[in-house]
Amino acid sequence: MEFYEYLPFWPKLTREQQQFLAQNVTLHHVTKGEVVHNGSEDCVGPLIVVHGQLRGYSFSDEGREVTLYRLFERDVCILSAYCMLNSLQFDISVQAEKDCVLYRIPAPVYKKLMQESAPVANYTTELIASRFSDVMWLLDQILYKHLDSRLAAFLVGEAQLNDTTELRLTHEEIAHHLGSAREVVTRMLKYFQTEKMVLIARGCITLLDMDKLRAVAKDSLR
Amino acid sequence: MEFYEYLPFWPKLTREQQQFLAQNVTLHHVTKGEVVHNGSEDCVGPLIVVHGQLRGYSFSDEGREVTLYRLFERDVCILSAYCMLNSLQFDISVQAEKDCVLYRIPAPVYKKLMQESAPVANYTTELIASRFSDVMWLLDQILYKHLDSRLAAFLVGEAQLNDTTELRLTHEEIAHHLGSAREVVTRMLKYFQTEKMVLIARGCITLLDMDKLRAVAKDSLR
Repeated sequence: MEFYEYLPFWPKLTREQQQFLAQNVTLHHVTKGEVVHNGSEDCVGPLIVVHGQLRGYSFSDEGREVTLYRLFERDVCILSAYCMLNSLQFDISVQAEKDCVLYRIPAPVYKKLMQESAPVANYTTELIASRFSDVMWLLDQILYKHLDSRLAAFLVGEAQLNDTTELRLTHEEIAHHLGSAREVVTRMLKYFQTEKMVLIARGCITLLDMDKLRAVAKDSLR
Repeated sequence: MEFYEYLPFWPKLTREQQQFLAQNVTLHHVTKGEVVHNGSEDCVGPLIVVHGQLRGYSFSDEGREVTLYRLFERDVCILSAYCMLNSLQFDISVQAEKDCVLYRIPAPVYKKLMQESAPVANYTTELIASRFSDVMWLLDQILYKHLDSRLAAFLVGEAQLNDTTELRLTHEEIAHHLGSAREVVTRMLKYFQTEKMVLIARGCITLLDMDKLRAVAKDSLR
């Protein structure tokens, strides 16, 4: 698929705008684990996911993290272009969760198009609103849902994403995804183990009873 | 001040667009406590705050609330026009915290302008990004800051907003602002009282030691 097929506003650009964009888009191969956007330290511009999986996350000074959203094939990462928007006053980072192939539009190129073209600007608004919705969902989870249901939902989601019931995740990694502390996650996993929902081994969590996990997860499943 | 003086994109509209907007803007007087936008049940369109104060908040099925952001004179409330954006997938409500005078632009009118005009669309993106930033600040607070500092910051902020150290607020109202439970707020206020920072009376909290409250609030003061 060509890069412009990912961009619904493409047919509404002028010939010059199309050429300008085509001349500046670049293709990148990124390895699992690599941080492709790092808070306020860079402004790489919008990224189009051709293959792979990205996660956007925020972090505290004390090294705690929380996963804010995930992006899959055909998704466009807009918060990696945060410098284009004066009102976006927060730092997030974006990491490759799998090996990725990405198209990148440099921030100044995208910004110029956004200022000229109402379709590009409206598309941007929708992207921001979509990420905003992800964060509102997370806030709702943190405020109103118990950690047991959030943890169960996370485990079920990971099993689906990776098509396996054997999850290679440390308790620390899970705590980072959920914005919780490692000790709290370990305690809850041990409780799940006594309930025969999971089996904990070094570096691996095996999901034993998906029905029971789904029942605990209920409200937290998206 | 005329309504168009609040809208930075006004000079960039065509004569027809200006006339179309001017014919459709309406002025409203709203009483303190009134809910001006109620989740997915209505879509009033953007609201311009001429006088007064609005708060945007989300709520759970169980009746818990959290204040997401506040809007003051010259601010524009865009999430009361959530139906204009397909990707905005969450419900919030907006309430008048003081008696308000508001200009209202009907959602279909604003949407038409946004689709035609890049300046209007880009302005909308900035407004959404600004509210998104408010919510990210709140998320950071909830995840990484302790309730004592959040409560102290809230009390100091209320004192400044209302220009008084005698706050007429119930513990339940404070819990709603902070997304916490009433019992937790009551416990913390009692601790503040033993530390001689506040004096609790029926329906009124008197702030006795602003310096000490500010010290506790530190990271949570905006």
